[in-house]
Amino acid sequence: MTMTRQPNEIRSDIAYSRPDRIVIRGKDLAQDILGQMNLGDFAYFQLTGKTATPAQSRVFNAVLITLVEHGMTPSAIAARLTYAGAPESLQAAVAAGLCGLGTVFVGTTEGSARMLYEAFEQAGDNPDLDRLAANTVADYRARKQIIPGIGHPIHKPIDPRTPRLFKIAEDNGMSGKHIALMQRIGAEAERASGKVLPINATGALGAICCEFGFPWKIVRGFGVMARAIGLVGHIMEESERPMALDIWHDVEARATAHIRD
Amino acid sequence: MTMTRQPNEIRSDIAYSRPDRIVIRGKDLAQDILGQMNLGDFAYFQLTGKTATPAQSRVFNAVLITLVEHGMTPSAIAARLTYAGAPESLQAAVAAGLCGLGTVFVGTTEGSARMLYEAFEQAGDNPDLDRLAANTVADYRARKQIIPGIGHPIHKPIDPRTPRLFKIAEDNGMSGKHIALMQRIGAEAERASGKVLPINATGALGAICCEFGFPWKIVRGFGVMARAIGLVGHIMEESERPMALDIWHDVEARATAHIRD
Amino acid sequence: MTMTRQPNEIRSDIAYSRPDRIVIRGKDLAQDILGQMNLGDFAYFQLTGKTATPAQSRVFNAVLITLVEHGMTPSAIAARLTYAGAPESLQAAVAAGLCGLGTVFVGTTEGSARMLYEAFEQAGDNPDLDRLAANTVADYRARKQIIPGIGHPIHKPIDPRTPRLFKIAEDNGMSGKHIALMQRIGAEAERASGKVLPINATGALGAICCEFGFPWKIVRGFGVMARAIGLVGHIMEESERPMALDIWHDVEARATAHIRD
Amino acid sequence: MTMTRQPNEIRSDIAYSRPDRIVIRGKDLAQDILGQMNLGDFAYFQLTGKTATPAQSRVFNAVLITLVEHGMTPSAIAARLTYAGAPESLQAAVAAGLCGLGTVFVGTTEGSARMLYEAFEQAGDNPDLDRLAANTVADYRARKQIIPGIGHPIHKPIDPRTPRLFKIAEDNGMSGKHIALMQRIGAEAERASGKVLPINATGALGAICCEFGFPWKIVRGFGVMARAIGLVGHIMEESERPMALDIWHDVEARATAHIRD
Repeated sequence: MTMTRQPNEIRSDIAYSRPDRIVIRGKDLAQDILGQMNLGDFAYFQLTGKTATPAQSRVFNAVLITLVEHGMTPSAIAARLTYAGAPESLQAAVAAGLCGLGTVFVGTTEGSARMLYEAFEQAGDNPDLDRLAANTVADYRARKQIIPGIGHPIHKPIDPRTPRLFKIAEDNGMSGKHIALMQRIGAEAERASGKVLPINATGALGAICCEFGFPWKIVRGFGVMARAIGLVGHIMEESERPMALDIWHDVEARATAHIRD
Repeated sequence: MTMTRQPNEIRSDIAYSRPDRIVIRGKDLAQDILGQMNLGDFAYFQLTGKTATPAQSRVFNAVLITLVEHGMTPSAIAARLTYAGAPESLQAAVAAGLCGLGTVFVGTTEGSARMLYEAFEQAGDNPDLDRLAANTVADYRARKQIIPGIGHPIHKPIDPRTPRLFKIAEDNGMSGKHIALMQRIGAEAERASGKVLPINATGALGAICCEFGFPWKIVRGFGVMARAIGLVGHIMEESERPMALDIWHDVEARATAHIRD
Repeated sequence: MTMTRQPNEIRSDIAYSRPDRIVIRGKDLAQDILGQMNLGDFAYFQLTGKTATPAQSRVFNAVLITLVEHGMTPSAIAARLTYAGAPESLQAAVAAGLCGLGTVFVGTTEGSARMLYEAFEQAGDNPDLDRLAANTVADYRARKQIIPGIGHPIHKPIDPRTPRLFKIAEDNGMSGKHIALMQRIGAEAERASGKVLPINATGALGAICCEFGFPWKIVRGFGVMARAIGLVGHIMEESERPMALDIWHDVEARATAHIRD
Repeated sequence: MTMTRQPNEIRSDIAYSRPDRIVIRGKDLAQDILGQMNLGDFAYFQLTGKTATPAQSRVFNAVLITLVEHGMTPSAIAARLTYAGAPESLQAAVAAGLCGLGTVFVGTTEGSARMLYEAFEQAGDNPDLDRLAANTVADYRARKQIIPGIGHPIHKPIDPRTPRLFKIAEDNGMSGKHIALMQRIGAEAERASGKVLPINATGALGAICCEFGFPWKIVRGFGVMARAIGLVGHIMEESERPMALDIWHDVEARATAHIRD
């Protein structure tokens, strides 16, 4: 809005094109990347500028795959309804589905990563994990806030994704202090509340993202990129076996029955 | 809108959840998928319900990776500008960036796949590829339409992605009649126009998608899912080294100089 | 993509700001607009740079109001589902709802405007409207295409919005040749098909937009701006009396019953 | 996600259709609304179910008009870039532009409304406005938070929209305690900081929304619906005098100069 400021440097280090090559994070796309990476590894490379080790590759691909598809979610239904109105804009249907990946359904991945980072920031060197977990749970309970990454409405007493993700991390040498703290927070939350509170997939994923060192602000992005794949799958099915108009007619009939009649 | 219709079956075959498992396309996510697939293979599985062979895996991962990142595109700039206004909604910034992947910038992948399918549909069995190519090019020229997948403003005389993609397809036994026709269309377009007209990446990708047998209506979706990954990379960089406000101030100053002064 | 082009002029005539004023289309927002226009008139001014006459004001406000709210449409349901996942991003929920206003549900406004303009372009001076209508209907029937703006699944034998909109146009001296042709096309379509085919609201609106002289490419935008208002109303109701999670659970249960059990 | 819950009532009171009428908030669209309301009044009716009084009409139309157009904002640029890639999806270009109306650029309207409501909630009956203002400013300063609705980078020493909006409210009998408190907060903020801190337009609008009694959660929606109108104006201009590709080329050249050369 101010008109007198000096032009700042506008700079991106991600990619550039020349007539004979496209260079991404310093690698030649055609020569050095295509045919030599899988999509998950390239996502890692796109974000970090580093080539994933085989261990990182296995863990990071598992993280992303976990987030691709969760069945007929609000996001998938919104994408299908959008596609029904604008089938010429498949991209806008995916976009509509992604818009709902906010604080309620995907934000807890971000939330658990942030919780773990902040717990370690406030602790000194060599913190006692049991005490950190106890303090963290006590803080959330005192503020009457839900602990991110803990509890699930149907996947109980355990969320089947969590032990598998933690095992993959461990098998690949990536089970460090963040996963350890998450597990203790889960146990402490069950003890303190007296309820069955499994670590859910977003809690497991948040902890693993901390082991990678990703900033918590970008963790939600993993759910967004993964779900874009899942939504294309839903739109492909919608184009072959549509349900959007039936959902519409059914919702409209039910929602207005009391005023139409 | 009609109130009297019978409720139709609302049915999806993609996924369902039970307390102890999430099942996607018939496989148990935790037991059978996580740790055993890479993200590209899972995208293939999500869309087709089939496990990619090693050859399909290499080709399909290359297809998707080609579409992830193209530098500071309009899509990437739109995502960054959106993030600057709503940093709490990373998902909406990605969505905004995806909304522009339409007929101008990604649609040609779809267009070349459609062109190739339709050429073969109209031909009989064992068509002469040279004649098919000549007819196709002649039709587009008669209608004064651009041939999808042909020509590029900067990647010439060849688009470096195209020979690499075709080589990966060939090395993996997936170089069939659609790629062969695309190559002949490219050569014929150059001959007929007298211009340098390389097969661009979207032409190569469209042809490869035909070799897989994907419906042309879903081909745009590969660009959408891939670019979602790229846009998260741009947003991550924007959060660390912002340029959106500088772009804004610069554009505003230039666009209104004639009326402000 | 090309790196060597000359910078073009980047220029907008819509608005600029100085410390003591915001100027839109040449008028001072605070002094000359606020308190002196209604929202529909300001939309007209924003688009055309002209102050609506009282007659234009009545007709244009009616055009926009017709498009605000159509009940529990796919667009409204998509917005509500999105809001449920990201209540912190009301703007993204509206955006998701707008993404579906494409060729199926709003495009026919655009389509009928385009049809009318093109019919007159191809005719000479003082065309015979009955013959134009007959030719137009015959062309669409020969191509087996639906005539835009004609027919409605529930509003028959007449769409109640159409006679009212045409009356408002007439009362304000804006019922010209485009409305006349639309009416003849409707009558001819019924005659030729033997079916009850009312001119629907989008047909009426398309014709009126032609009377204003709006380019057909922008006509869809009236539906988009109007529906944004309607969607905020749906989100406000959703925040007070939610239905999104119930829609989700119901759709999920129905869609996966055959594989869960 | 849970499968065993009872179906809840899905109910909307906004609108329904019958063959011969569309009824919105109890009024017949064709008979009782079209030709008898302007767009701003209909927005009020859509949201509240009440017909605006002439005074409410003048104030509410002014509120919405203030938010339609702010020049070449990030939102407008994002919409133009999106339109350049997908000109067939005008709706998606508007959607992309709206996605950025979040906490940075439009949220402060919401924020000032919330601040004012919460100040009165915590005060008893007949609160001393000066003390309320002093406490509010002190609280924000103690938390080192920016006071919503206060200060502007270029519109100083006063934001020209604010006195005009407050005058319109006063002239129409709608200048109550929320506006009075906002004014005192502005004065106190200047006094406490020693800086020039005008009440900006979002502060004025937030206060007026409180006078109407709108829930603060929906206040952001006024900016969203209004800006949808403005963005259609930008897209119309972009279709006639494009700048998106020039912005793209310019940004790309500048952003990658350091790695290309």
